[in-house]
Amino acid sequence: TARNLFLLPGDGIGPEAMGEVRKIIAYMNEAMNAGFVTDEGLVGGSAYDAHGAAISEADMQKALAADAVLFGAVGGPKWDDVPYEVRPEAGLLRLRKDLELFANLRPAICYPALASASSLKPELVEGLDILIIRELTGGVYFGEPKTITDLGNGQKRAIDTQVYDTYEIERISAVAFEMARTRQNRVCSMEKRNVMKSGVLWNQVVTATHKDKYSDVKLEHMLADAGGMQLVRAPKQFDVIVTDNLFGDMLSDVAAMLTGSLGMLPSASLGAPDAKTGKRKALYEPVHGSAPDIAGKGIANPIAMIASFAMCLRYSFNLVKEADNLEKAIANVLDKGIRTGDIMAEGCTKVGTTDMGDAILAEFKAL
Amino acid sequence: TARNLFLLPGDGIGPEAMGEVRKIIAYMNEAMNAGFVTDEGLVGGSAYDAHGAAISEADMQKALAADAVLFGAVGGPKWDDVPYEVRPEAGLLRLRKDLELFANLRPAICYPALASASSLKPELVEGLDILIIRELTGGVYFGEPKTITDLGNGQKRAIDTQVYDTYEIERISAVAFEMARTRQNRVCSMEKRNVMKSGVLWNQVVTATHKDKYSDVKLEHMLADAGGMQLVRAPKQFDVIVTDNLFGDMLSDVAAMLTGSLGMLPSASLGAPDAKTGKRKALYEPVHGSAPDIAGKGIANPIAMIASFAMCLRYSFNLVKEADNLEKAIANVLDKGIRTGDIMAEGCTKVGTTDMGDAILAEFKAL
Ligand SMILES: CC(C)[C@H](C(=O)O)[C@@H](O)C(=O)O
Ligand SMILES: CC(C)[C@H](C(=O)O)[C@@H](O)C(=O)O
Repeated sequence: TARNLFLLPGDGIGPEAMGEVRKIIAYMNEAMNAGFVTDEGLVGGSAYDAHGAAISEADMQKALAADAVLFGAVGGPKWDDVPYEVRPEAGLLRLRKDLELFANLRPAICYPALASASSLKPELVEGLDILIIRELTGGVYFGEPKTITDLGNGQKRAIDTQVYDTYEIERISAVAFEMARTRQNRVCSMEKRNVMKSGVLWNQVVTATHKDKYSDVKLEHMLADAGGMQLVRAPKQFDVIVTDNLFGDMLSDVAAMLTGSLGMLPSASLGAPDAKTGKRKALYEPVHGSAPDIAGKGIANPIAMIASFAMCLRYSFNLVKEADNLEKAIANVLDKGIRTGDIMAEGCTKVGTTDMGDAILAEFKAL
Repeated sequence: TARNLFLLPGDGIGPEAMGEVRKIIAYMNEAMNAGFVTDEGLVGGSAYDAHGAAISEADMQKALAADAVLFGAVGGPKWDDVPYEVRPEAGLLRLRKDLELFANLRPAICYPALASASSLKPELVEGLDILIIRELTGGVYFGEPKTITDLGNGQKRAIDTQVYDTYEIERISAVAFEMARTRQNRVCSMEKRNVMKSGVLWNQVVTATHKDKYSDVKLEHMLADAGGMQLVRAPKQFDVIVTDNLFGDMLSDVAAMLTGSLGMLPSASLGAPDAKTGKRKALYEPVHGSAPDIAGKGIANPIAMIASFAMCLRYSFNLVKEADNLEKAIANVLDKGIRTGDIMAEGCTKVGTTDMGDAILAEFKAL
């Protein structure tokens, strides 16, 4: 049976990066009979330009029907002043919400070949391998009320609402514990229970879920501000980190930057397994943004997008061997000193987007 | 006229650190006729043990009446399970709110003698001097509703509310612009306008305040997650950062850790100038916490508390020369290789809390 992929390249360097994934898909269909069927839509600024919305209803339907969505990046100065409701990010947020992709997996790994690119001392990041599990459909991102009200006298009042229910915290912590079991079996939960009621509930539910079903996993709690500090001080102390939508946004970006491998980092956003089929809805996207300043120049680093496709092979299609090989192909190319401009280092060979994609595909073929 | 200081040493290492400030106060009264009059109260766990509240009404009155409050630290495992309303942090939060200390100044500086203690590469932090201006009486810390509700079926719902009014953003950005003028004249404002309505309003009001009164200052806007990344990547790009209460909590902790000088960093929390007297209510506290694991051992680093007192001299009493000298005394002692355990390095002399305090006082006297 067909494997349906819906591609949303988006804005900026998104389309260029996605182009390199297409090559891998084509090769897997041809040489491995992978049976991928692809369709493509618009999201972000490019969707706004075409339809006046950050994603069209038709494309939303396609995303809902697909086995997996591959997402590039959205945004750019061109759309800085479009109305809030149709800003580029709204497309991504709607996808996360309507597909119920509550579990965002963000690996922060340090490619050995790139350890020296980190702003941290190499010994602190060499071999770094953290998995941040960020709750993605709740919290202050989606809570209501979310308003700006005119109070008169030139005063306005802005309100955002952080809301978490027990079940939302339960299911994300279950994902964290499950993932920990496949790794070093340690979870660190981060919140601000000393200031936020949602932090209090978060802490209680994670603790109860742990006691109930996952007491074999080592669980630690940390205040989110202290967690940010510890990430900078000694990131290797962590295995799996589980945290809410907003803290996860901040902490995963800090963690990504620590690795020195920002342009290389993928992410997966997963829904709950379907009761009948066991299938999860899923969206895969690079951690980096749309980088409008270098878009269209053929110099963007496609590795994060390709690594996101590797996560797709692993989590959506259970193609574990293929995922391993694709990740290995990336590491091998880096080891050979082939680099895009963003990760260029002395003695290495500087290449553009397509050459980097070709090099990875060649390695992948050879494995 | 007398200069009234209200001392709240708090829990953990707070009292030990405060002891070293007392010595400096005594010396300034004796040798410089500084006229400091001190009174002392309880806050945090120690207040809870004595009164069943994180700060007593009598001590709140004294804090309100004082020219400045010196605050140590609160919290510890002993009080991990006290009710939310009387947890140690509630004392600090009430002080901030009732004294209307909306402007939290957190310098993140790297003492040259400690640059190698940073987890960042030395060249990225040497000479680092950022001032983070954190809004301290608004946002998700104090917004209502702030509740946990039982929904039945074993489900609870936790709600926290982020609220910002125009005037709150106006006054904190004015502080940021004013401070920038005494420094490198650059402000970077951080929010999540792509996700939060409060971020949209924040961005608008900072922009309007800038245009209105401070167009001589260079203003930049950054998304808070990108800001966290940039702090880790290249912290020296920043001069003054202005941000909301929760982002400020996270970002100032990350920035503090970057410097490698965490145990050295002070903070000032200021109110608005009184319409008649021009005086601001103020509280000064170290950025570090109560460190219960080393409390009572005489090994805590008192530098952050002493540096907080230097900020007090500067901002509450306009004793600029004395503040400069006290800061210089700290730097000199570090240059001489005198270190508490937390900042110990090869070839340095390890001392305890009182010896460190004495060394700084001796330098201060000699200046
Ligand atoms: C683009 C933006 C809405 C998004 C977020 O805040 O979640 C991004 O920062 C991310 O981390 O995926
Ligand atoms: C102790 C705690 C309530 C406090 C805060 O969150 O503001 C602390 O982390 C700080 O940064 O001063």
